[in-house]
Amino acid sequence: MNIEEFFQLSAGKWFSHRTSHHLASKQSENGKSDTIIEILSSDDPEVVKLYQQYNVDPSRTCYGAKVTWNATMAGSEKKDTGSTVFVAVPDEDNPNEGKFLRPIDSAGKPLVAGRYKIGTDDALTLTTEYETMWYEERLWFASPNLRMRVSVVKRIDGFSTASFTSEIRMGGSQPTAKTSQATHSASS
Amino acid sequence: MNIEEFFQLSAGKWFSHRTSHHLASKQSENGKSDTIIEILSSDDPEVVKLYQQYNVDPSRTCYGAKVTWNATMAGSEKKDTGSTVFVAVPDEDNPNEGKFLRPIDSAGKPLVAGRYKIGTDDALTLTTEYETMWYEERLWFASPNLRMRVSVVKRIDGFSTASFTSEIRMGGSQPTAKTSQATHSASS
Repeated sequence: MNIEEFFQLSAGKWFSHRTSHHLASKQSENGKSDTIIEILSSDDPEVVKLYQQYNVDPSRTCYGAKVTWNATMAGSEKKDTGSTVFVAVPDEDNPNEGKFLRPIDSAGKPLVAGRYKIGTDDALTLTTEYETMWYEERLWFASPNLRMRVSVVKRIDGFSTASFTSEIRMGGSQPTAKTSQATHSASS
Repeated sequence: MNIEEFFQLSAGKWFSHRTSHHLASKQSENGKSDTIIEILSSDDPEVVKLYQQYNVDPSRTCYGAKVTWNATMAGSEKKDTGSTVFVAVPDEDNPNEGKFLRPIDSAGKPLVAGRYKIGTDDALTLTTEYETMWYEERLWFASPNLRMRVSVVKRIDGFSTASFTSEIRMGGSQPTAKTSQATHSASS
């Protein structure tokens, strides 16, 4: 599987069940969410904005997606809704690895591009290193309609959280959406 | 990382926190365990027994381990204790893949050797296909002292369970145990 196929297969509506293990306290908490993943074209304004923020050459190939969630934590009536975009920019000499761009979520936070890598086992690993934090997420498909995600956050004082999300495709059918592989033009 | 290094790094005493997601009911349950992983030599009686059960040529290289657990499920006072052994037998032309042998756990069940594969992302994937069931487990180290495990069980009627286990090495130091890489001799 390559990064384009991974994006294609991710597109659609998912039921996400997340469990976080707090490693120091040995406690866990659960949350559930409807998750929608949409493929973005390379000239989508949010993709173009990320390219500009990270100073990426606009002629480079990219794969962009928007994730929208509507979540609840166990034991809480409060809903958490939101969305984010991310963009994968393959290395020119090896498309199985590359930059992984996310929007800046707080003013003044240093701009750090993550890295992605598709392994021979078809798992996608995302890694981001900040000055005081290290973040790794691993995603793969147990089947076209069952996606697995595990993320680990390490802070200066050690690992703090490991989270597991199982995601079941709603409706049970494969996506029809196509990843838009295109190059940015100077006019986009 | 190769299979020998994966075994070496797995040796030791771990605190295991497991969460199972029941995919149909969308319910989850938690369990905790102390887990001890010991490397077995190739002439250990339990390793030899597995070789015989699976008709593996005793001259083949193997890596064996014994896993002992002492677990409790959330909301239950009942302890679950037990142990099992497993043996990895690398393919002769590619040691990053091979057979993965486990003891038979019920009389009359067909003898099915699993497969292991080490990916370029250093994750170990174990797969076993039975007549009515398919089992996949993926393991990797977020750090030398933090191991991640995700298993998925698919039955004839669809996926039934996805389980996540985070494992923290007790004591926080790396193992001193060495994998015994040796070949069986006819006399073993």
